[in-house]
Amino acid sequence: MRVHAYAAPAAAEPLAPTIIERRDVGPNDVLIEIKYAGICHSDIHTVNGDWGSQPYPLVPGHEIVGIVSEVGAAVTRHRVGDRVGVGCMVNSCGECTNCRNGDEQYCLNGMVPTYGGVDRDGTITQGGYSTHVVVDADFVVSVPEGMDLAAAAPLLCAGITTYSPLRRWGAGPGKKVAVVGLGGLGHMAVKIAHALGAEVTVLSQSLKKQEDGLRLGADHYYATSDPDTFSRLSGRFDLIVNTVSARVDVDAYLGLLAVDGTLVNVGAPAEPLSLDVFSLIGARRSYAGSMIGGIAETQEMLDFCAQHHIGADIELISADRINEAYERVLASDVRYRFVIDTATLG
Amino acid sequence: MRVHAYAAPAAAEPLAPTIIERRDVGPNDVLIEIKYAGICHSDIHTVNGDWGSQPYPLVPGHEIVGIVSEVGAAVTRHRVGDRVGVGCMVNSCGECTNCRNGDEQYCLNGMVPTYGGVDRDGTITQGGYSTHVVVDADFVVSVPEGMDLAAAAPLLCAGITTYSPLRRWGAGPGKKVAVVGLGGLGHMAVKIAHALGAEVTVLSQSLKKQEDGLRLGADHYYATSDPDTFSRLSGRFDLIVNTVSARVDVDAYLGLLAVDGTLVNVGAPAEPLSLDVFSLIGARRSYAGSMIGGIAETQEMLDFCAQHHIGADIELISADRINEAYERVLASDVRYRFVIDTATLG
Repeated sequence: MRVHAYAAPAAAEPLAPTIIERRDVGPNDVLIEIKYAGICHSDIHTVNGDWGSQPYPLVPGHEIVGIVSEVGAAVTRHRVGDRVGVGCMVNSCGECTNCRNGDEQYCLNGMVPTYGGVDRDGTITQGGYSTHVVVDADFVVSVPEGMDLAAAAPLLCAGITTYSPLRRWGAGPGKKVAVVGLGGLGHMAVKIAHALGAEVTVLSQSLKKQEDGLRLGADHYYATSDPDTFSRLSGRFDLIVNTVSARVDVDAYLGLLAVDGTLVNVGAPAEPLSLDVFSLIGARRSYAGSMIGGIAETQEMLDFCAQHHIGADIELISADRINEAYERVLASDVRYRFVIDTATLG
Repeated sequence: MRVHAYAAPAAAEPLAPTIIERRDVGPNDVLIEIKYAGICHSDIHTVNGDWGSQPYPLVPGHEIVGIVSEVGAAVTRHRVGDRVGVGCMVNSCGECTNCRNGDEQYCLNGMVPTYGGVDRDGTITQGGYSTHVVVDADFVVSVPEGMDLAAAAPLLCAGITTYSPLRRWGAGPGKKVAVVGLGGLGHMAVKIAHALGAEVTVLSQSLKKQEDGLRLGADHYYATSDPDTFSRLSGRFDLIVNTVSARVDVDAYLGLLAVDGTLVNVGAPAEPLSLDVFSLIGARRSYAGSMIGGIAETQEMLDFCAQHHIGADIELISADRINEAYERVLASDVRYRFVIDTATLG
């Protein structure tokens, strides 16, 4: 099956329309007519080759929602016409400890990323900036009724990436949660932490987006460029979710944690960072990292978001604006996620 | 009350016999006739001035056991003749969140260390290398009957320092726990983790103490000087307790953790260390720190150790061998804790 897509022809080259091949629908596969695909910052890093060389041409996109248009003979989980989503992975071994525990993202044999990975049949996976995709049914989640399909797309990466650590480290009533950075990930973290019942503080470089942050559900908003912020909030938080991938002063953020508090990174700088172990020992603090979430947890996140009427704040664009959108993401000029209307791909 | 003690007259000078003043027994105080005092590596760091300047002359010692010889009018918790212990702190504010939660070691107003601290009456606290000490009753714990008093002394620091993180991070049946370093702290960590029911692995620089490690309760023993150790044990552990204060390759140890595993430092190098955040994110790992434990938890630890017949492996020395013992601690030539018989102080 040959379908329309937008692909990067080579590292750091603008994306351009193309035609790609999708595999035949196998017994466990679902063919999805893609409706919307979110643009994640990591799409840009990947196609630019920032994280290592890639197989080109490469179609990015791992925030995918659409409608099931065909199912394999063995598929019971999804039906033609269902609203579904696909996130950052399309397969895993299914047999290792982590897969069996529902942590497919940490598959010991390597999960298969939605694009730029080697699928089990040896082909290179191609992502969601496309009209159709064929995915193993076990890696397809249901988008609940009543949820806006375009606003749901970013939940498949930005949503689960923040939901998972918020749940794991107990964000909820009586807990003080800080979110570092108010971008695509940060704005989802604020919405979800608020819906979970936590007291939410945004720590952003400036107060530029303060009004937005409070509207999204934050109770407090502080500028990290103001050094007083770090003394004023010393020992305040139970959990800090750091959505900023750039190097930050980890010790300064650890100092904002109460006893038993956790700072969790959902992104990572390319270079190692410096850490004073006394920042941990002085109050039994933890520094942790988290990467997306498992498939069952992704479904749980979508159900939670539907129940709490949470979607991403998006700017819907046509495919011919993808390269412009990339420039604007790099300039932090998006509130808060670009989503491609795939009807414009053809 | 003037009592015999051994004190450091100045930074990096040998300890020498001296006479110090102990305060009058107040209504909430307990006078303890000290029987034994353990020598902790941090005694040496402190009197040497490695951790900042100190008030001299300074009497170290925060692993103290003895017999109550007088109690203040308001004391109900201890009676004359009781076997008791005092660890690393002798007071705290009692009113902050952390004190109220039983985490006096993280007192927001600063706990009072057993020596070299400023007590609430403005005097400098002096430690356990002494025949007597007066301590607030709330900071005195009971040494259970049947427990060897000399072998109990090191539990007050080395015991609680390892018990607390082992408990907090769930060491127990079905859990794989590694202990890095087999010194005073490490040998306690092995005993306690084993008694908690965990599968215990020692990670030591060499295999020199392997026989000891297995006798103390370890199931496995590996040399970290063998690079194969890190590939062989990749992703193996739920919890690693790092008792080594020197700089280690944190990323290498994080790589030994399974999904959701925690590496916890109970000591810290003086210099910041380098950490690759991908080591955390790749398996939702945590890097944590822990410092001794609260008073109630210290009592819990002593009761646990009594129930499981756990004491420290000690070498009992007379006071005139303290300086020699310091040299041997620095040379890692002790299995596994020196304890001073305070009857030899006078």
